[in-house]
Amino acid sequence: MKMNDSVRIDMPSWLRGFAEQLPQSLSTPELRMAVAVSLSRENLRHGSGGPFGALVVDRRDGRWLSLGVNRVEPSHCSCAHAEIMALSLAQQRLANWNLGRVASGDLELVSSCEPCAMCLGAIPWSGVRSLVCGATKEDAESAGFDEGDRPEAWVDKLQARGIAVTLGVARQDAAAVLGRYARSGQAIYNPVRP
Amino acid sequence: MKMNDSVRIDMPSWLRGFAEQLPQSLSTPELRMAVAVSLSRENLRHGSGGPFGALVVDRRDGRWLSLGVNRVEPSHCSCAHAEIMALSLAQQRLANWNLGRVASGDLELVSSCEPCAMCLGAIPWSGVRSLVCGATKEDAESAGFDEGDRPEAWVDKLQARGIAVTLGVARQDAAAVLGRYARSGQAIYNPVRP
Repeated sequence: MKMNDSVRIDMPSWLRGFAEQLPQSLSTPELRMAVAVSLSRENLRHGSGGPFGALVVDRRDGRWLSLGVNRVEPSHCSCAHAEIMALSLAQQRLANWNLGRVASGDLELVSSCEPCAMCLGAIPWSGVRSLVCGATKEDAESAGFDEGDRPEAWVDKLQARGIAVTLGVARQDAAAVLGRYARSGQAIYNPVRP
Repeated sequence: MKMNDSVRIDMPSWLRGFAEQLPQSLSTPELRMAVAVSLSRENLRHGSGGPFGALVVDRRDGRWLSLGVNRVEPSHCSCAHAEIMALSLAQQRLANWNLGRVASGDLELVSSCEPCAMCLGAIPWSGVRSLVCGATKEDAESAGFDEGDRPEAWVDKLQARGIAVTLGVARQDAAAVLGRYARSGQAIYNPVRP
């Protein structure tokens, strides 16, 4: 077994066609969330990962810069959550790890679900200035997912870092996809707890 | 500007030669930490990323499965911390996102520094059963790095999930690399806080 020296995570092949159908600009939080929820639903329908979608949008003009879906199982990578994918795709597209220093410098992460502890920790490092979420921690947990150990008052802590937070946008639509995933009997891919 | 549809993070080219010099088995925590610290030091010396190194080791026989270094700047990816790299490389090498279900199922993440909030959140999802750290949060902060908003009593919380934690192994050696980085005047690559 040879050492590997790169990590590669591909988005699913259906995503290109999905992107081609999208308008270039998504002018409201509701439109952006509709895209995040569609990503989660399509990922479930295609069996190409967990039921989570996210995108990075420039708040100045509403243009989206990246579209991400959960790829934990197909890419053999527990870090391949939708939010991590959307942030990383945007950064590599713009050739800058700091989204606060590219485009308008006012970029937003839109996610079909509240971030888990890992994705929450990743947000301040990415340079985005705002976060918009659909389904809640309770919705994710009802579907069997574990959000991890997030710090108390995490919304306040993000806001103290200059990152605006909006929760519960189109929550029912977003949560419905999680519920459908749970009923589908597909794997809940957290490691078994002791 | 075209949409990209994969994320790719390469380890630096010097790492292959580094790996070839290593024994296959690292039998003690001190030996493993010496490797993590060497990775951080070599990454600084080659200018190939931030001063952090990590590896995944099978605790049953001491064999290492992956070697990771920080690649935030060269790979344009704020998530490319050494711990995320070591976990992802091990998972993709073994073609399984859950390190609790491969090899002996008793895999350990060894890191030259305590995890930031993101890497801490990633650890339970990865399936490793233990974490060993060198430099502390205080050492990282002294060098100008930000560890993020970690939950209170994070060591207890990891242990409650069945993940053993050992802190401060070879702390001085590990912290010395961080100090050298700070004195080198290289970028501290956290986004500017408000």
